Amino acid sequence: MSYGEFAFIDRLLKPLAADMPGALELGDDAALVVPPAGHELVVAKDALVAGVHFFAEDPARLVAGKALRVNLSDLAAMGAEPLGYLLALALPRGTEDAWLEDFVRGLEETQARFGLGLLGGDTVATPGPLTLSVTVLGHVPEGRALLRSGARPGDEIWVSGRLGEAAMGLRILRGLAVPDEEAMPLVARYHIPEPRLALGRALRGLAHAAIDVSDGLVADLGHLCRRSGVAATVELERLPVSDLLRGIPRWRQTALTGGDDYELLFTAAPADRPAVEALSRDLGLPLSCIGRTAAGEGVRVVDAEGREVAIGNPGWRHF
Amino acid sequence: MSYGEFAFIDRLLKPLAADMPGALELGDDAALVVPPAGHELVVAKDALVAGVHFFAEDPARLVAGKALRVNLSDLAAMGAEPLGYLLALALPRGTEDAWLEDFVRGLEETQARFGLGLLGGDTVATPGPLTLSVTVLGHVPEGRALLRSGARPGDEIWVSGRLGEAAMGLRILRGLAVPDEEAMPLVARYHIPEPRLALGRALRGLAHAAIDVSDGLVADLGHLCRRSGVAATVELERLPVSDLLRGIPRWRQTALTGGDDYELLFTAAPADRPAVEALSRDLGLPLSCIGRTAAGEGVRVVDAEGREVAIGNPGWRHF
Repeated sequence: MSYGEFAFIDRLLKPLAADMPGALELGDDAALVVPPAGHELVVAKDALVAGVHFFAEDPARLVAGKALRVNLSDLAAMGAEPLGYLLALALPRGTEDAWLEDFVRGLEETQARFGLGLLGGDTVATPGPLTLSVTVLGHVPEGRALLRSGARPGDEIWVSGRLGEAAMGLRILRGLAVPDEEAMPLVARYHIPEPRLALGRALRGLAHAAIDVSDGLVADLGHLCRRSGVAATVELERLPVSDLLRGIPRWRQTALTGGDDYELLFTAAPADRPAVEALSRDLGLPLSCIGRTAAGEGVRVVDAEGREVAIGNPGWRHF
Repeated sequence: MSYGEFAFIDRLLKPLAADMPGALELGDDAALVVPPAGHELVVAKDALVAGVHFFAEDPARLVAGKALRVNLSDLAAMGAEPLGYLLALALPRGTEDAWLEDFVRGLEETQARFGLGLLGGDTVATPGPLTLSVTVLGHVPEGRALLRSGARPGDEIWVSGRLGEAAMGLRILRGLAVPDEEAMPLVARYHIPEPRLALGRALRGLAHAAIDVSDGLVADLGHLCRRSGVAATVELERLPVSDLLRGIPRWRQTALTGGDDYELLFTAAPADRPAVEALSRDLGLPLSCIGRTAAGEGVRVVDAEGREVAIGNPGWRHF
């Protein structure tokens, strides 16, 4: 790498902070952040390691974009608006200039698309794999954040978009043979998840509880149920799965337990079904009712005849 | 490691968040943070890699404590009060339970001492060295943060505490032979830096500019001068250096360019000297005037006769 630390910050990172007065041109000890009046801040932090959370040979632009997008998905799940982010980068010696430039281009495109800017962070050397951590800040009107803990027995369970596609994209990257024209959109879903920010915002006051599907549908629904103190039954036949996915072996398992979809999973009162359906039309985003909550605990998946379906490993564990 | 991800969070990390309602018991997608009325948030983020920023064999309690303390020092340099922190941990497979428990004990002691709590974060596996990133959040009355950019020509330059001791402690850890009773306090200064939070708070409205000494006196004064558009002259004889340090070879170089002291370096109007001296007495903390700023740029160090002293490598660079 021919960039020294200060040139990397000055030439590549500083432009990412240009619209953020509180970033103080990345030249101070910390950043200043003021949430809009009547709003509280929402803060999430993720860590990503090359070879674990992305492939070391993945294009840097996609790695940068995904690092921001998965954090933005956490804001979406809280019903929050993006504000800014901090970035910690641990770079192996010998990281090439072209990689850094491409990485910064990925940040730039993604922050422009979602309306946030760089606030600060840290860049260090590592003898290990490239490791990065994003802290994203957003804001939400006070007391109106969507939480995992608000589901009530008898709620309908909804999910946005289509399930299993990102995980299938990952299976393809790992060697699953699928014709190219089918593979590409699935791989794109893995590399470029779409944080459902507009949906999250619109669900404030409508959803009782929400979470984003990052570990897998069953695992994340389990988190939501535990936090809310309810049980859930999911109907396999109602899962939003594309015809494309249905043509690939083990698609049911992938839709139920595959991670990385970053769709929103939420519950709402049955009486609010028309409002959820109207929202789906307004946003041009499929919202599918996939089951119900009940008193009790645990997540069951049933087939069209109401028979319980066995689920293998319920989802991604981080270690 | 016999803790799984969820047991690690539930049993070890969750108690660290017990006093933070906005942490949502570490059970949601993000944390909620509300700065007190009339305050803005101050946010800093650092990354630390085993073998680079600390020794892999350092006690986990000290690693955890230092990770928090260096971030708190960034808040001190802004005149901010601590509020909470997020933690991203990338753990090598085979990290021992005892290490994790000891690490959490270090967080616990340090957060209790400085009045902050855990808000959230992420724990992942890494094939590389243990890597951690802390994001610290604090607050400061609106518009009153201390910045690096406020120094004016003719200011006096002050520094808290004593210089060079942490860097000397590091030299000792790397093999410099020093009698044990002299070595121990220096090594402690390296492992347990003291964030100067009370000083930072008291300097609001008194200091024109401030920074913490993490990269080394000359390097950090250089950052402050560049941001403020001023030059600085430091008088070598006025540097606060202990007799202990003066007995060790190359002590001048260590005091000028060694990092990790985490003392506050600030400038103030000469007319405010009595106020700074009163503050030193109130806090029981030495504050030493080490030089002056002037119109121009660059940092010069001069000896008792006013002759310029050559400085070698001006300080730590991160890569």
